[in-house]
Amino acid sequence: MTSPTTADPRLQLIATARDFYQQGWMLGTAGNLSARLPDGSFWITASGKSKGELLLSDFVRIAPDGKLEASASNLQPSAETSIHQLIYRLFPESQVCYHIHSIEGNLVSRLVAGDSLPLPPLEMLKGLGIGQENPCCVMPIFTNHLEVSQIAADIENRFAVTPPQIPALLIRDHGVTVWAASGEASRNYIELLEYIFRYMVVASRLDVLPNKQSF
Amino acid sequence: MTSPTTADPRLQLIATARDFYQQGWMLGTAGNLSARLPDGSFWITASGKSKGELLLSDFVRIAPDGKLEASASNLQPSAETSIHQLIYRLFPESQVCYHIHSIEGNLVSRLVAGDSLPLPPLEMLKGLGIGQENPCCVMPIFTNHLEVSQIAADIENRFAVTPPQIPALLIRDHGVTVWAASGEASRNYIELLEYIFRYMVVASRLDVLPNKQSF
Amino acid sequence: MTSPTTADPRLQLIATARDFYQQGWMLGTAGNLSARLPDGSFWITASGKSKGELLLSDFVRIAPDGKLEASASNLQPSAETSIHQLIYRLFPESQVCYHIHSIEGNLVSRLVAGDSLPLPPLEMLKGLGIGQENPCCVMPIFTNHLEVSQIAADIENRFAVTPPQIPALLIRDHGVTVWAASGEASRNYIELLEYIFRYMVVASRLDVLPNKQSF
Amino acid sequence: MTSPTTADPRLQLIATARDFYQQGWMLGTAGNLSARLPDGSFWITASGKSKGELLLSDFVRIAPDGKLEASASNLQPSAETSIHQLIYRLFPESQVCYHIHSIEGNLVSRLVAGDSLPLPPLEMLKGLGIGQENPCCVMPIFTNHLEVSQIAADIENRFAVTPPQIPALLIRDHGVTVWAASGEASRNYIELLEYIFRYMVVASRLDVLPNKQSF
Repeated sequence: MTSPTTADPRLQLIATARDFYQQGWMLGTAGNLSARLPDGSFWITASGKSKGELLLSDFVRIAPDGKLEASASNLQPSAETSIHQLIYRLFPESQVCYHIHSIEGNLVSRLVAGDSLPLPPLEMLKGLGIGQENPCCVMPIFTNHLEVSQIAADIENRFAVTPPQIPALLIRDHGVTVWAASGEASRNYIELLEYIFRYMVVASRLDVLPNKQSF
Repeated sequence: MTSPTTADPRLQLIATARDFYQQGWMLGTAGNLSARLPDGSFWITASGKSKGELLLSDFVRIAPDGKLEASASNLQPSAETSIHQLIYRLFPESQVCYHIHSIEGNLVSRLVAGDSLPLPPLEMLKGLGIGQENPCCVMPIFTNHLEVSQIAADIENRFAVTPPQIPALLIRDHGVTVWAASGEASRNYIELLEYIFRYMVVASRLDVLPNKQSF
Repeated sequence: MTSPTTADPRLQLIATARDFYQQGWMLGTAGNLSARLPDGSFWITASGKSKGELLLSDFVRIAPDGKLEASASNLQPSAETSIHQLIYRLFPESQVCYHIHSIEGNLVSRLVAGDSLPLPPLEMLKGLGIGQENPCCVMPIFTNHLEVSQIAADIENRFAVTPPQIPALLIRDHGVTVWAASGEASRNYIELLEYIFRYMVVASRLDVLPNKQSF
Repeated sequence: MTSPTTADPRLQLIATARDFYQQGWMLGTAGNLSARLPDGSFWITASGKSKGELLLSDFVRIAPDGKLEASASNLQPSAETSIHQLIYRLFPESQVCYHIHSIEGNLVSRLVAGDSLPLPPLEMLKGLGIGQENPCCVMPIFTNHLEVSQIAADIENRFAVTPPQIPALLIRDHGVTVWAASGEASRNYIELLEYIFRYMVVASRLDVLPNKQSF
């Protein structure tokens, strides 16, 4: 018997991937989505599959220690699997992790030279848990490396010293990653961040007012 | 027996919310829609619900005096409920009130430093009731406060002195609110204003002609 | 018996209006579409109807001399009816006339100060009948007047002296009008012109190359 | 009996054309798609057909030597047929060739004066087979000629000396062409390139960082 809490999370990942693909966030097979199971293992999208038409057989299952647990033949786990594995280890309450490649996510990663992106003080930040008036929220940016394990090591080292203000990180020229306790919350975080990124891309080109100088 | 005028207005709000969500105007659970009933109470979207997939149980009913009349368990009325309540009190002919968070609505609120936004003299203003040649139409901008009751107080004080030219107001970094005697009219106002905002965002970056200097 | 050539043209207008609405070209009830009948009269969208959900009863029928022939009660013919009537008189081979209000159509009408808009030498011009290498194509711009009959008079006077290079005209701050011998051709013209307008809006903001100076 | 490998490739071309049309990449009948058959001939879209609603009868079949093999009456092969024919001759492993007219493809062809377009070092380049850290990838640009055979000759001459780094080429003011061993791969290449073009169009207008000077 299948209860809601043990329903196959791949069904939600398939629906979300199709929506994100249609938004232009997972084009050309880019990006990867994962969800944890009660035993601590997680399903993650396999490499090289079009995200607009995923099948149940287009996922691989990864044990908490990173070993491949289950997979159809010929499937490669996503190249970013080690980042998902790290997120689940660092944030035990997280059950779902989404990584997408939007154009605006790439553009905002180039709006600043350093490794932190100040977000503008929009009402929409409330949905990310930032509930102050004129909030100051900064998002971490990581350098893209060909070896994903190097990116994962950078994330772990930085978060050990400076935990992120919001459950999200950005890899320069590459894309955003979010995590949350549910698929709904992860999806909302993606929507809110992409909204903010699109705002920033346009705002950076407007004749801005004084309090826009922060980014 | 249900006649058209007493049909449950939540059905129209659900359909409109889904459309606005798909336009990118109600992402990450943002925004709120309400509609009045014959007894003066109104249904308004509850807080924290994804606007793309609302259910009848995702609304709360508010009495004219602001008290919670009916609600499923665990629902919070939208944080902006006090603004809807004020609008229905100030404009007794209004039956529907929509508040959304578009990117362009946030951007145009930063195109000017003051508390008024001049709208460009587009043909589309006719749909908002502005029927002059080369019309001068100005839209009020309010400061965003963490306490929504403060925003509502600002609106009431300003409109007592200066009624708005069109049935709409803008909260800086936050979004637009419109009201009308029907859902169809409110929807048209939202469409027209978002059209004008998108025009303004791009026009502000073009090499403009002399009569474009007004904003 | 209904043969294809005598099928009710309102069905095609309804489908086209819904598509154009979804493209953002007929928002807030804006724009109007018409099609001629064998007797020289034409059906045109009534004023104030949402273009995303037109019904057969949302059209009025206009005689060649401009008189209202048939209409459901309470319908007003579109304000721009006199322009459609003029187009059918000036271009007898035209059977369909579309007028829409896109954001980009408004923006390009402000890229030049005068009454002519040079179009960039894109391959897409071939679909508008311009088949030269490095074509020079100019589109007429008319001033928007509150009295549409004044716009129609301006069009007639100018086209008597200078016929248009392509079957299209632009009203500043208002929108584009096209005409053709079929609904398919009119739709293609709209798609091509809106493509070119979007190109021009962005190109005008880029660091352009020498041969881009023409507009 | 029909096995998957001999299924009519026009069905996939019809579905892809509809999707590309909806993306705004094949408006006003623009662009052309082709797929090879086991005998070396290929089906290609006929000229002047709306790409959002192609039928099986809207294709012509071209022999390897360029002769028209099969066609419904009154059909003209696409004007760009000679380019498809050349691609299949130069790249024998390619089975599918897509040519589209996006706005961004036209814009990026004007971002540089010469005949090569440097692509930015985005993660998305991996999907095009570029697997280096900080990759340098350059895409060939060809001059648009009214005579397509002249464009084809230019492509053949240049590729004989300098084969392309990725399976794609750009014709200035006209659009992009890609080729691959399958429809899925060709579609991914189109998606990736259009993503990169959109990135470039916006990035060229931002205050860029040092390593963005390359284009």
